[in-house]
Amino acid sequence: MPSDSDSGMPTDYEIAQSVEKDHIADVVEPFGLDGDDLELFGEHKAKLKLDAIERTLEESEDDGKLVLVTGMTPTPLGEGKTVTTVGLGQAFNQIGKDALIAIREPSLGPVFGVKGGAAGGGYSQVLPMEDINLHFTGDLHALTSAHNLISTMLDNHIKQGNDLDIAVNWTKWPRAIDMNDRVLRETVIGLGGEVTGIPREDGFILTAASELMAVLCLADGLEDLKNRVARIIVAYDEDGNAVTVDDIDATGAVTILLRDALQPNVVQTTEGTPAFVHGGPFANIAHGTNSLIADEVASNLSEYLVTEAGFGSDLGAEKFMNIVCRFGDMEPDAVTLVASVRALKYHGQDMWPPDVDALEEEDVDAVKRGFENLDKHVRNLQKFGVPVVVSVNRFPQDTDAEVETVIEHCESDLGIQAAESNVFSDGGEGGVELAEELVEAAESDSQFEPLYDTDQPITDKIETIATEIYGADGVEYHGSAEEDIERLTDLGFDDMPICMSKTFHSLSDDASRKGAPEDWTLEVTEVYPSTGAGFLVALTGDVLTLPGLPEEPAAAGMDIDPDGTISGLF
Amino acid sequence: MPSDSDSGMPTDYEIAQSVEKDHIADVVEPFGLDGDDLELFGEHKAKLKLDAIERTLEESEDDGKLVLVTGMTPTPLGEGKTVTTVGLGQAFNQIGKDALIAIREPSLGPVFGVKGGAAGGGYSQVLPMEDINLHFTGDLHALTSAHNLISTMLDNHIKQGNDLDIAVNWTKWPRAIDMNDRVLRETVIGLGGEVTGIPREDGFILTAASELMAVLCLADGLEDLKNRVARIIVAYDEDGNAVTVDDIDATGAVTILLRDALQPNVVQTTEGTPAFVHGGPFANIAHGTNSLIADEVASNLSEYLVTEAGFGSDLGAEKFMNIVCRFGDMEPDAVTLVASVRALKYHGQDMWPPDVDALEEEDVDAVKRGFENLDKHVRNLQKFGVPVVVSVNRFPQDTDAEVETVIEHCESDLGIQAAESNVFSDGGEGGVELAEELVEAAESDSQFEPLYDTDQPITDKIETIATEIYGADGVEYHGSAEEDIERLTDLGFDDMPICMSKTFHSLSDDASRKGAPEDWTLEVTEVYPSTGAGFLVALTGDVLTLPGLPEEPAAAGMDIDPDGTISGLF
Repeated sequence: MPSDSDSGMPTDYEIAQSVEKDHIADVVEPFGLDGDDLELFGEHKAKLKLDAIERTLEESEDDGKLVLVTGMTPTPLGEGKTVTTVGLGQAFNQIGKDALIAIREPSLGPVFGVKGGAAGGGYSQVLPMEDINLHFTGDLHALTSAHNLISTMLDNHIKQGNDLDIAVNWTKWPRAIDMNDRVLRETVIGLGGEVTGIPREDGFILTAASELMAVLCLADGLEDLKNRVARIIVAYDEDGNAVTVDDIDATGAVTILLRDALQPNVVQTTEGTPAFVHGGPFANIAHGTNSLIADEVASNLSEYLVTEAGFGSDLGAEKFMNIVCRFGDMEPDAVTLVASVRALKYHGQDMWPPDVDALEEEDVDAVKRGFENLDKHVRNLQKFGVPVVVSVNRFPQDTDAEVETVIEHCESDLGIQAAESNVFSDGGEGGVELAEELVEAAESDSQFEPLYDTDQPITDKIETIATEIYGADGVEYHGSAEEDIERLTDLGFDDMPICMSKTFHSLSDDASRKGAPEDWTLEVTEVYPSTGAGFLVALTGDVLTLPGLPEEPAAAGMDIDPDGTISGLF
Repeated sequence: MPSDSDSGMPTDYEIAQSVEKDHIADVVEPFGLDGDDLELFGEHKAKLKLDAIERTLEESEDDGKLVLVTGMTPTPLGEGKTVTTVGLGQAFNQIGKDALIAIREPSLGPVFGVKGGAAGGGYSQVLPMEDINLHFTGDLHALTSAHNLISTMLDNHIKQGNDLDIAVNWTKWPRAIDMNDRVLRETVIGLGGEVTGIPREDGFILTAASELMAVLCLADGLEDLKNRVARIIVAYDEDGNAVTVDDIDATGAVTILLRDALQPNVVQTTEGTPAFVHGGPFANIAHGTNSLIADEVASNLSEYLVTEAGFGSDLGAEKFMNIVCRFGDMEPDAVTLVASVRALKYHGQDMWPPDVDALEEEDVDAVKRGFENLDKHVRNLQKFGVPVVVSVNRFPQDTDAEVETVIEHCESDLGIQAAESNVFSDGGEGGVELAEELVEAAESDSQFEPLYDTDQPITDKIETIATEIYGADGVEYHGSAEEDIERLTDLGFDDMPICMSKTFHSLSDDASRKGAPEDWTLEVTEVYPSTGAGFLVALTGDVLTLPGLPEEPAAAGMDIDPDGTISGLF
């Protein structure tokens, strides 16, 4: 989250630099890990070694409580879900609960686009924030390399005789890059004559959108990782049979490249709470939660694990419940839904594009008009049988009247608990009330259940998500979608959960529709299998898998002094 | 170097696994560095922190002796230059000289192509060899990201109004990838309509061929790095003026991405000698030596620094002498030229492609016929005024008669010292004779001088290298070369040294010509400025800047066990 330099608070980077960090081995020691369990990256970053992971998962069967952080439909600026996750972990520790945090790791490329990091903010950050936002421990780089190794093995197979009879125009494995570089979305490759192979259309996706990212985030160990890699579909042959990573002999090499990346990263927050920062699929184009292995290890080591799912209940949270919890045999004990006065006013505006300046002014009526978005997210989460507590992430410009209106609405109209959160400005102290309400919620009887059974037909599963979560009247299939579904059913891939690819700007598939849109139909344009991840991806609307840079890229404002001090990053 | 499993020796990987490694802080301690000077990557890899670099460079002015390792024109299998470098460093320590090693770090992509690592071999390896050959400390990944950040900033500038009036078909900054992926050599990008920008031809080069790699390897600190990045030319405007990285506002962000990569990596050899493994430009398409900063630091910390230049005297060594030593104000005190019986027989064969099986059989006459290649390399090195010692890297199948023929030839016909090297099979012990001869050579009076002055005209400099080093009769300019030279002279870029891009398979520009080709003319097809690196690149023949995978890629034979044990990598 970008800092507000008008508020008189130091910038995120200044706060981060002012914190005296402990050695990471000392940070994790109270949770039963020691220095030998860690592969150090300097003094403040580490990866948890494979044998420590195995030991942790075997030792304890009495998992801690799992608290999921999600949000309402955000403004393009973000409403502070990561800051809430980090602050809440700190707050739990302040009220005497041993708590750990698990969040996604940032993608490097997007850091250079729109200004703003992904390591929390203010006094609720994970540190060292500049490293975490840049190369960190190299996981994204490993994924990019592994993805592109598959790509080159595929094209090389085609060039060297194509024994598998791969249909050149039916390849399903683009190339990947961790950079916002829109001109690579649609390309023609293999030009230059016979020596370079067969010319064909291809494109690049962001590394975070690679199936390998999903695979890494769902694997429960190295053997499972390898099995998942092996079964990824990269193309079809002329008879329509799937061609996998294993068929092109790339399983071993790809798994080797991902070996270290599978190990969760551990860092500390501004208050010294250990945080697992591992895996980073986007929630609009992928499943949107940090690695399952980090969640499993962290929940075995703590009384409370606070974990985050990307974007709203319609995206990260829905996928966490229907995909991740199903695969990992996990049950959230409580959910906190991050709301902000700004986002409520945004939904209360009836215009597109929004008037961002107006969001700064007090406007209680606009806040109230935005409730329909908040309410829909609350109802969505309740459908999974999990208690919900609303967290109002307070920004400096929010007035008491606005904040109180939200809390009053939750308690009176929705009958659920709500708390103001000031973790950005006050650290864990600012989240104590929220933490206490979540303890109460988590200790109540959660009746968690996914929303659909995987053995339902593909169309039923898509329609359940569309109608129950998005609020659509139904689903229309365009492009190749109907044919895809038929073929996937014939191939026996119909028993997997669904990973929807949908805009995060709206509960609907139209980015310009705010609130809780009604009287609309979800348009699905393509369905394809992510057999390594174990789900089917359904594409809706125009979801970009490779963003571009804006007119004024954040990169243009960055600098570094001869002594290594960075500026303009946040 | 790949192991020879027929020789009864364990594989490189087995040897590497059998060595009990010390903590890297203990390894460097005898050389005046301590744990606080290191940024650890686990227990056995580290980067030297910026302040330790500065302190080292300030503290000592009494540099140690500098020994350069280069080679004759190799077979496609390689003749063991890295193994000699590593073994020689160990040998110096065995004879009581405090010695350090500096070599290039491997490029990840090519590891998946032709089998064979780049971390030495046998009992003269740098460890942990599997990490060094894979992601290592992420330098190559940082370079790839930084390179592609420039690319996207360039295309984004064009798309967002093109205020600099960049000529879209006169861009000079391709994209980069660290993967042997031939179909990316020539591409069309920006397809898909107006939203994605302007369609244009583009291509990818290997990261090792990026000017940023050269920049990283020639910068003497962070400030110099930033200045070099700023002045890199990425395109020309419609009036023919150069457009730099600084013009497109990418200097700060790119330097931020390279901050950590600038810090030299330190590891240990099989015998615990500290080795700087940093920077990896290829010597055929780039300047081919490890980072200047590693050389400078290491030579300040040691009595003897053994450093390696890629390929033969015509490539890495020529560039080390004419470019790196000039920029770094360094003087090699002695050079060892790595020869092998295999390579001599290869040059003694009069056929193309070579009969590789025949190289295994004893053939003293073929060895003798190969001397003309060896002799030319010796004469080349002597032109720089530096004493030369030939090192015969012994392979298991070499006979005594063959090896003795080589040594006898050097001593009697060439009047220089030569020694058999058995560092692959015996570690430092196998290089003691070589080390002793190099001590004698290095203590003699070296009269080092680069081969040309930078203020000579561009064509003079190219012709000096072509005739004096390659043995050509002269130079012909094709394609845009003459026009390039005229333009570069007009732009004032004519006072830089030359970095030739030439095949390593031959002293000439024709890969099929062995020995010391005569009666030929060098063909230069293009000359372009690497203003960040500070040299002009002259392209000759068909030098691939992005290799492809072979019919049987090494990747296809790689595997990993559930416990993380790798196989098939070497």
